[in-house]
Amino acid sequence: MPRKRHTERHFTASEAVRDIVIGMSDGLTVPFALAAGLSGIADSTPTIIVTAGLAEIAAGAIAMGLGGYLAAKSDAEHYAREQRREQKEVAEIPEEEMEEVAKVFRGYGLTNDQVAPVVHALSQRPKAWVDFMMRFELGLEEPKPERARMSALTIGGAYTAGGLIPLMPYMFLRSAHEGLLVSVFVTLAALFVFGYIKGRFTTARPVRSALETSFVGSLAAGAAFLIAKVIA
Amino acid sequence: MPRKRHTERHFTASEAVRDIVIGMSDGLTVPFALAAGLSGIADSTPTIIVTAGLAEIAAGAIAMGLGGYLAAKSDAEHYAREQRREQKEVAEIPEEEMEEVAKVFRGYGLTNDQVAPVVHALSQRPKAWVDFMMRFELGLEEPKPERARMSALTIGGAYTAGGLIPLMPYMFLRSAHEGLLVSVFVTLAALFVFGYIKGRFTTARPVRSALETSFVGSLAAGAAFLIAKVIA
Repeated sequence: MPRKRHTERHFTASEAVRDIVIGMSDGLTVPFALAAGLSGIADSTPTIIVTAGLAEIAAGAIAMGLGGYLAAKSDAEHYAREQRREQKEVAEIPEEEMEEVAKVFRGYGLTNDQVAPVVHALSQRPKAWVDFMMRFELGLEEPKPERARMSALTIGGAYTAGGLIPLMPYMFLRSAHEGLLVSVFVTLAALFVFGYIKGRFTTARPVRSALETSFVGSLAAGAAFLIAKVIA
Repeated sequence: MPRKRHTERHFTASEAVRDIVIGMSDGLTVPFALAAGLSGIADSTPTIIVTAGLAEIAAGAIAMGLGGYLAAKSDAEHYAREQRREQKEVAEIPEEEMEEVAKVFRGYGLTNDQVAPVVHALSQRPKAWVDFMMRFELGLEEPKPERARMSALTIGGAYTAGGLIPLMPYMFLRSAHEGLLVSVFVTLAALFVFGYIKGRFTTARPVRSALETSFVGSLAAGAAFLIAKVIA
């Protein structure tokens, strides 16, 4: 039953999982890299690194969470506006809208004769007709505005949780140098595990996903470290 | 011609514009907030702030750009894998796949009789049939892998360009306090203009978009500043 496997995979990669992945992959990467960069400055202390890290986490979580929330609200409004427009057009210029439906199918090589029954049937059901146009002509999925708030909290929370991991060592160790060593070890391990789990949900190659996630984190941290060394 | 307006709007909100919006909204917000936060520490200097800011920009641009690139590659592979599966199923279990097509239309209240001509016509064109299943059954758009690299560079570049704006004042002014004042002024102006232009492309209310963008930036900077004050 291949169809069954489809459904299951689409179900498991749910919106909550996607939100956690979005927040945590950046949360594990950017505060980690920032802390590594700051630890490369000669006179930096764990206090400065932890302060900068927590400030970055707050800013990143707000930018991703609240920014995502407002974007979702705006998507929902865009959808509602286009929906009203389609409703109006279906009522006022049905001939043109029937032609639009036919056009969708002609794109798949079907003739007007072949699609006529579907076009006619849709034209008898204005509500289904509008739904059809929204999805198949405009390519818009109906947003779930009640999801926006939960999504914002999940992304912001995942960013925060991810960002605290690389900062922990600097909170408990005396020198920035020791903090860096432990942070690199702990965070690379976390990136690997996170990338592996993410890969299990979204791709067929979890090990490659784990290596990619660790690579992005390492590159970001390496770049931040070099920049800080050069400037300060 | 309302249809004309549709097309135009969908055209102008192109992928490049979307990538710039994604990169720049975070780029203007997070480095701004981090710099504001660090300027709240008693013994911080413009050098530490600029160093941390540039390290953050490098990390953020890599995380967003390269992370986005790898995600796009993985989406393209997911699409190709599902496409192969559909091709196989269309060839091996055509009856079940025809039933899947009919199911899509029954969701819009059509009867089997009404959709029979379309189902039959699609079943004669395996390529169009697979395309139809990908889009209308699975809801997957064909990714453009050649876009992934350009998209990564655009997002990373926009993040960097956005992030340099709040840092500039700290580069040219002597004290962190002066830098903060000018940075807040310059960045809020930039967030407002950016939010307004973004709103012109994506919503019907550009002024509200400008206010929202400025609000997210202010809140992120305020939170970062407070956190730094409390800790350091």
